[in-house]
Amino acid sequence: MTVPVAGPVLVIGSGLLGASVGLALRRAGVQVWLDDTDPGALAEAVGRGAGEPWRPGAGDPRLVVVAVPPADAGAAMARATALPNATVTDVTSVKAEPLAAAVAAGADAARVVGGHPMAGRETAGAGSARQDLFDDRVWVVAPLRQSDPQRVEEIRELALTCGAVPVVMTPEEHDRAVALTSHAPQVLSSLLAARLLDADPDAVAVSGQGLRDMTRIAGSDPDLWRAILGANAESVVGVLEAYARDLDDVITRLREQGDVAEALERGVEGRQRIPGKHGAAATAYDLVPVIIRDEPGALGRLFVAAGDLDVNLEDVRIDHVLGKPSGLVELSVRPEVTARLVAGLRSLGFEVRA
Amino acid sequence: MTVPVAGPVLVIGSGLLGASVGLALRRAGVQVWLDDTDPGALAEAVGRGAGEPWRPGAGDPRLVVVAVPPADAGAAMARATALPNATVTDVTSVKAEPLAAAVAAGADAARVVGGHPMAGRETAGAGSARQDLFDDRVWVVAPLRQSDPQRVEEIRELALTCGAVPVVMTPEEHDRAVALTSHAPQVLSSLLAARLLDADPDAVAVSGQGLRDMTRIAGSDPDLWRAILGANAESVVGVLEAYARDLDDVITRLREQGDVAEALERGVEGRQRIPGKHGAAATAYDLVPVIIRDEPGALGRLFVAAGDLDVNLEDVRIDHVLGKPSGLVELSVRPEVTARLVAGLRSLGFEVRA
Repeated sequence: MTVPVAGPVLVIGSGLLGASVGLALRRAGVQVWLDDTDPGALAEAVGRGAGEPWRPGAGDPRLVVVAVPPADAGAAMARATALPNATVTDVTSVKAEPLAAAVAAGADAARVVGGHPMAGRETAGAGSARQDLFDDRVWVVAPLRQSDPQRVEEIRELALTCGAVPVVMTPEEHDRAVALTSHAPQVLSSLLAARLLDADPDAVAVSGQGLRDMTRIAGSDPDLWRAILGANAESVVGVLEAYARDLDDVITRLREQGDVAEALERGVEGRQRIPGKHGAAATAYDLVPVIIRDEPGALGRLFVAAGDLDVNLEDVRIDHVLGKPSGLVELSVRPEVTARLVAGLRSLGFEVRA
Repeated sequence: MTVPVAGPVLVIGSGLLGASVGLALRRAGVQVWLDDTDPGALAEAVGRGAGEPWRPGAGDPRLVVVAVPPADAGAAMARATALPNATVTDVTSVKAEPLAAAVAAGADAARVVGGHPMAGRETAGAGSARQDLFDDRVWVVAPLRQSDPQRVEEIRELALTCGAVPVVMTPEEHDRAVALTSHAPQVLSSLLAARLLDADPDAVAVSGQGLRDMTRIAGSDPDLWRAILGANAESVVGVLEAYARDLDDVITRLREQGDVAEALERGVEGRQRIPGKHGAAATAYDLVPVIIRDEPGALGRLFVAAGDLDVNLEDVRIDHVLGKPSGLVELSVRPEVTARLVAGLRSLGFEVRA
């Protein structure tokens, strides 16, 4: 454990993220004050143990975490810099827009450093807050050009104290990065899924796991994504335009030459750039396909067997099939344990397809 | 079990698919002859028990399954119709091109019915053949306009005998369907992944599970996909052009109005059309997130607990995290069992996030 960030910390907004920041800081022994315009929400977060209610005059916070809805974050950061000498950050999922709003509202920019902990997607409210919400997650620290380097370091320490992995980038870099890795793919997934609306039921019946994977995030909350995409429209448009150029190019090649080898090879290469589990470089895991029966306990017996063989499963995929209750489960394991796992599972009577 | 298709069946080509067809038919008690231009491959399939070597003059097959590489399938089907009265099918993953080639090579079209069992993606060769390769898989039966309806029925019976779920559509419907649900998404996945090649390492570091899901199939064998896309270029271009139009539209909306609500909502709707497990209509499963430690046996204990609670897991997702060895596992279950699972897991000491 790193040395905890110096408190007291004032958390403004006691929803899921604010209350979770409070819980994570309290876990590390940091003093936390909480504030919220909604007394009920505040009471819930206090009741969960996320901090003490903030009373003006209680003292001077060293650090203020603004965890209010994105549209209000800029103004709230500006107001927070009225507190003497406090370092101010936020937790919204786009960075340039709220930071610009803070500066426009008169924030002392030297004391403002943007933040985006990449966690917290499930349910809202302090009732869902967790002290481990940020554990092992990336927490982007996004300084303004005017931010004091010592303040930036403080927000890095805040992220570390909350259990996260801080990654420093400019607000613009952040917004382009999430446009590339999250926001634009979200739009593509929606377009891919929407194309199925006009299709014949028999055509959709031949869908395989690839399409299911690619359209999974298309099932996300449209209102949430509408707000995110709207706040990062410029960067998202940039990435989507690049996709559109790539798509036109591949259409031309496929139509004229019937061959898109280069695009496919670049795809394999690009895929390898995505970080693997635990932030390691993408590892080439072996896939071990096992047939299981679709009944309670069937998966359990398989995973217990893997554990008994002292094999750690890096990933598990259940290949959904049509018609009958049975299924293919793919276990991802490090290549050095594959032979042991396959032999062990077979000796235990499992059907391993290899 | 249905009544097995009437044999003897001659399988031409004894690779993974041909030998698996042989094994599946033998499992049902159907007589199988095997043929292959490569004596070693033939011997391997015979050795696996996929059938007897074909000797001209041994008798008249009722049915011929052509399981040779796509480029040779048309000519092989035409040659097979020289056998008196045999019904002839193939197993290639596009349908219009090989069937047209068969007709052009002089096949007796009334006796030809295309086929595409949607299975067999792992490894090649008779050594990987399985009698259950087609169990519960869709097997598209694609008649020509000239195909005799009784012959079409025979190929449906062949699919059923091999354990598959036959779905009848025209060759053109098939090729459009796989373009929509498999081939064009494959291209999109590759483009998405290739876009990461120019990105800064820090930008790629913020990648989440959504991008990982969407680029998974971009890691597939480029040579295989080059051939598939080339053979179905026209249909794939059609779908990609539709994507390109949708993409241009969404770019314009996002740039001019900052709002893409409609595309997102259509995506949610389209996603719901994809068949769920066991070919059922997509079911809204509940997601139960559980924190587990990344150590051998941890998953096993969780799944055994679910089995002990008599809860069937419909799907499992392991959310990869950065930095430290721990992880979030999402269990998909039918809504009526959620409360029981959550309470039961908690009483057993599992950390359920809900």
